[in-house]
Amino acid sequence: MAPAFLKAEYDERLRRVREVMRARGLDALILGDPSNINWLCGYDAWSFYTPQMMLVDLDRGPFWLGREMDAGAARFTTYLTPEQIIPYPETLVQRADTHPAAFLAIWIAEAGFASAKVGYESDVYYLSPRALEYLRDGLPKVEWIDADLLVNWVRLIKSEAEIATMREAARIAEIAMQTAWDGARPGVRQCDLMADVVAAQIRGTAEFGGDQTAIHPLILAGEAASTAHPMWNESPLEASQTVAFELGGCRKRYNVGLARTVHLGKPSQLLVDTAKAVEEGMNAVMDALRPDVLAGDVHAAWQKVLDRYGLEKKSRIGYSIGAAYAPDWGEHTLSFRPCEAVLVPENAVVHIILGMWMDGWGMELSETLHVTRSGCDRLANFPQHVHLVQS
Amino acid sequence: MAPAFLKAEYDERLRRVREVMRARGLDALILGDPSNINWLCGYDAWSFYTPQMMLVDLDRGPFWLGREMDAGAARFTTYLTPEQIIPYPETLVQRADTHPAAFLAIWIAEAGFASAKVGYESDVYYLSPRALEYLRDGLPKVEWIDADLLVNWVRLIKSEAEIATMREAARIAEIAMQTAWDGARPGVRQCDLMADVVAAQIRGTAEFGGDQTAIHPLILAGEAASTAHPMWNESPLEASQTVAFELGGCRKRYNVGLARTVHLGKPSQLLVDTAKAVEEGMNAVMDALRPDVLAGDVHAAWQKVLDRYGLEKKSRIGYSIGAAYAPDWGEHTLSFRPCEAVLVPENAVVHIILGMWMDGWGMELSETLHVTRSGCDRLANFPQHVHLVQS
Repeated sequence: MAPAFLKAEYDERLRRVREVMRARGLDALILGDPSNINWLCGYDAWSFYTPQMMLVDLDRGPFWLGREMDAGAARFTTYLTPEQIIPYPETLVQRADTHPAAFLAIWIAEAGFASAKVGYESDVYYLSPRALEYLRDGLPKVEWIDADLLVNWVRLIKSEAEIATMREAARIAEIAMQTAWDGARPGVRQCDLMADVVAAQIRGTAEFGGDQTAIHPLILAGEAASTAHPMWNESPLEASQTVAFELGGCRKRYNVGLARTVHLGKPSQLLVDTAKAVEEGMNAVMDALRPDVLAGDVHAAWQKVLDRYGLEKKSRIGYSIGAAYAPDWGEHTLSFRPCEAVLVPENAVVHIILGMWMDGWGMELSETLHVTRSGCDRLANFPQHVHLVQS
Repeated sequence: MAPAFLKAEYDERLRRVREVMRARGLDALILGDPSNINWLCGYDAWSFYTPQMMLVDLDRGPFWLGREMDAGAARFTTYLTPEQIIPYPETLVQRADTHPAAFLAIWIAEAGFASAKVGYESDVYYLSPRALEYLRDGLPKVEWIDADLLVNWVRLIKSEAEIATMREAARIAEIAMQTAWDGARPGVRQCDLMADVVAAQIRGTAEFGGDQTAIHPLILAGEAASTAHPMWNESPLEASQTVAFELGGCRKRYNVGLARTVHLGKPSQLLVDTAKAVEEGMNAVMDALRPDVLAGDVHAAWQKVLDRYGLEKKSRIGYSIGAAYAPDWGEHTLSFRPCEAVLVPENAVVHIILGMWMDGWGMELSETLHVTRSGCDRLANFPQHVHLVQS
């Protein structure tokens, strides 16, 4: 086991984060999002179900703060020195009377941050109100600054090494979707088909293996496809069903999303028309997506097509995507929706997902797009049409 | 698609939660843990990556509060009436200037709880400090009470229907572990082996399908096994490696954990001795586990065996287990560790996991145990010995 990238890559990421910290006057930054921790130092383990943080300072760190039984993973998967790995005792796990954050607050004070200006992530999955309360109680002189998404916005611009890794994830996404297309037919249980799809995601290629995607693989079959995130079940696919797959590939925690649609039988005119609109919409988005375009203007290109077809979609059509653990592969920064006045930078990677959850059925088409110097490249190479299965 | 259990089952769960709420003087309870929401009403979708809550009141609800595109799943997977499903608009997703909780606070006030005594979950993964801040700001007259784990403690005692579902999950766990035992040999890539294992978990049996377990399936091979939660990679298994598998099965979100160890080649005396201690320890735990025993006394039975062998384990040896989404299948209530003065009730289900993460290698043995009237039953039926693979 070794870190996913060279040390110079992590050094550069740290440098970029510290640059923003200095600009905001932060002495330290506490991360609770395991995706951000992984991105910043490579740390990779399924350990974030008990409290786990990273403290980024301006010179000596960053410091991994986590459970004793997981400290070994910090040695295997990062370049951190033993001085940068701060384990809390096992006895603090899941107690009513105390919290690991109480222990960590003492360490933070002793490390010199008792009166510092400290940023923290306020809206991440794995830094709870109770953890934050224990930190605040233990560090009463700290000036706390909401620094949510600070790292995420830095992550928005991908390095060459990250793009190369995401291209590998895209190869896996293609294989997974091909497995879904090949296996979808009436009578096949959803769970059996998804077993094959997930196995393909994990197996990867002969050259490199895959990981579980951060978003649970989704199969939207029949009326369940009228909602966005249903779980598979054991019922068989049925003739005349439209089945959307929201899959992807994951490589070294980097996720590439890929959604496609299959129809089992002869498609209705409504499906044909909707699919046509969605494919045209994707083309319009890809034509509009380039460095320094406003996210809202990319959405407008989609909306123009949708209006022409008299269709409606209330939700955003995309977001930035990258390194992530469950439950989300989105980076929570860029959102493509009306009037979003944020410029899309070169080397952003975004997942444009055109999900049409209709009345009693639904379809999806997505692409993970790399914003290049002159426009955008799709990472996965997979036909965009609705795949028809004779039933 | 239909709810996982009969309406009477959910009615009884709600009755039991309300009983505790009344005893604590709560008018309402806000849940952020999707496992608790699933347990209370059946709601099942991968939608908790954007804010999602449940408000439990004393008479009309409970109310599902979530994203508009996911409201459909509430209709498919629960018995909630349209009046109990409260969607927030898509435009509120991931914005810097507002939060879905601002919208939900207005609904909560209009629903009659503006001056109520409201409990909330303070230490769950999916109710962030920022969400709570928006709720507090929007409901300034509410008396907020930390009611973390209220539902979890009610969930500790399982119904007959839940035990039956967990027995199905245990069947899946057996199949998954057999797949690991059959496939483990030198030269096999970890990712290829785990692809087969996860596929077996999802495929389930001919009678019922499986789901992804809440904890990422773990393979601890060679020196990575000196830490508790490493992720698989693409390196091949090697001769003379000890390989621990922490797997399980999941059925209708109910998780059953199962850990076993394989050795590729001739085992060392240290492995033989450690395995003997661990098997004896598991027997001692199973002898001690019965209704109304203290969790600390169950741990003491294990410690006694460990002392005799001169071995050490710093972490707790088990916890209650049940319905869960990523990242954890534990219920965060019962912990089996020294001096834990909590009585184990009849119909608890606990995962006893004896993980020995040694210097440069490791092994695991676990059982998911149902506390019966007179003792305990293991849910999965799988040999406990270290499986030796000739290499």
